[in-house]
Amino acid sequence: MKNIYIIGIGLIGGSLAKDIKKLHPDAVIHGISRKESTLDEALSLNLIDKKATLDDVAKADLVIIAIPVDATVKILPSVLDRISDTGLVVDAGSTKVDICKVVENHPKRRNFLAMHPIAGTEYSGPSAAISGLFVGKTNIICEVEKTTFKLQEKALDLFKAIGMRIRYMNPEAHDKHIAYVSHLSHISSFMLGKTVIDKERNERDIFDMAGSGFASTVRLAKSSPEMWTPIFEQNKQNVIETLEEYINNLTHFKELMKANDFDAIYKEMKNTNHIKDILKGIS
Amino acid sequence: MKNIYIIGIGLIGGSLAKDIKKLHPDAVIHGISRKESTLDEALSLNLIDKKATLDDVAKADLVIIAIPVDATVKILPSVLDRISDTGLVVDAGSTKVDICKVVENHPKRRNFLAMHPIAGTEYSGPSAAISGLFVGKTNIICEVEKTTFKLQEKALDLFKAIGMRIRYMNPEAHDKHIAYVSHLSHISSFMLGKTVIDKERNERDIFDMAGSGFASTVRLAKSSPEMWTPIFEQNKQNVIETLEEYINNLTHFKELMKANDFDAIYKEMKNTNHIKDILKGIS
Repeated sequence: MKNIYIIGIGLIGGSLAKDIKKLHPDAVIHGISRKESTLDEALSLNLIDKKATLDDVAKADLVIIAIPVDATVKILPSVLDRISDTGLVVDAGSTKVDICKVVENHPKRRNFLAMHPIAGTEYSGPSAAISGLFVGKTNIICEVEKTTFKLQEKALDLFKAIGMRIRYMNPEAHDKHIAYVSHLSHISSFMLGKTVIDKERNERDIFDMAGSGFASTVRLAKSSPEMWTPIFEQNKQNVIETLEEYINNLTHFKELMKANDFDAIYKEMKNTNHIKDILKGIS
Repeated sequence: MKNIYIIGIGLIGGSLAKDIKKLHPDAVIHGISRKESTLDEALSLNLIDKKATLDDVAKADLVIIAIPVDATVKILPSVLDRISDTGLVVDAGSTKVDICKVVENHPKRRNFLAMHPIAGTEYSGPSAAISGLFVGKTNIICEVEKTTFKLQEKALDLFKAIGMRIRYMNPEAHDKHIAYVSHLSHISSFMLGKTVIDKERNERDIFDMAGSGFASTVRLAKSSPEMWTPIFEQNKQNVIETLEEYINNLTHFKELMKANDFDAIYKEMKNTNHIKDILKGIS
């Protein structure tokens, strides 16, 4: 792997750049971005070696697309149009159905691998990139059978060297399940933040009483709306379904409180308490 | 301060014991608990020097009550019945209205100080006690004017030495505001955990896809139902009100998604994004 092109040098693209450069010091990492200022920042942070444009990907051994999922859907066909027979294109989007669909009949479909590395922080942009972000983290690969065997192998060798745990899934199952363990958490956090901020307008000093528990539950409300709006749009049906289940559970909890059924409230919490054991494997 | 009695040697009581022992190496820390096994554990962890019973508090310079808030309401009058004229009783409960109310006409009311140190982790029991838990954390004191001046002074000197930031508030304002920044976060976490656990029953491997974002939002669902059920019961009206606002915000978000109004979805998130600046001072 000599020529690597990364489209979008933010948290994910920049962190991948760092890990790849460490594994392949001779590789040349080219950055592509809509914004010149992002490329300048990425250069000054040593995330990339050179600036490039879309037409340059004809020379790529590997192209990584790490931009918002609506932009990925738009740009992915043009990237595949330009890729060489031995070049590999991967995307790192948080949704997989629309992205896989837009290239399903593309003549170069076999040069594409759809992935979703489940790693990140609530920060964004080149300065958010960190080394080792993907160590021990799950990377979900969709429709692996649609990628040329040699390019599959190349990609998996790289992902494993970076430290990722690989899981295979179809795009529909990915989008459905990720709505529960990622997309819903973000909405929960954003709306919790909103509820308290709205209250603070009338009742000052509320935040002076906030502790680490509050900070933990609203941490994801710091996330980028530019990145998350298209995710919710592409995964609309699944997200609405999870939101409805969540709202029903909250409403049930509220009704139990109104009915003074605190034995049932206790049981609701006790039954969820074994999340302890589940979380042991995660954080 | 020679003789200190701590009723309930868990996360909060045990952590206070550690800090006090460090500041006053000559003090004798006596532990009181319903369960003999808790006292044995606290002794073996060096959190307390001696076991004691309720009647012994007549000899106390300071009594700290750090047990679930329903138990505090029950035991507090008997502790005050036994306290000497120069003894101070403080409680560390997460609600303040019911606790202040139960002793409002007690002849020893002036020997009592109501506080709520906003510190903790999702763990409980003697083994959860840690040194320095309260450094930089807010400790809310209610009805300070109802405590003898000399005992106020004694308590505040200790709290400041432990590193706490002191805030004064009446019990009603405390219970109303804490519902937003603490109690609601716990319900949000528990119900998020429940929503995903329920789904996992039918769709395996969901948790294999969970990342640090999910772990952060459901962390509080590890909390003790024994401690939280009475908190929700005592703060019922305020908690129901916050829950209704939260559910309304989530429902509005869902309706915007259904209406495909993703510009409004973007704005909802953008408007909450400045939680970044608010959280800077917390975690």
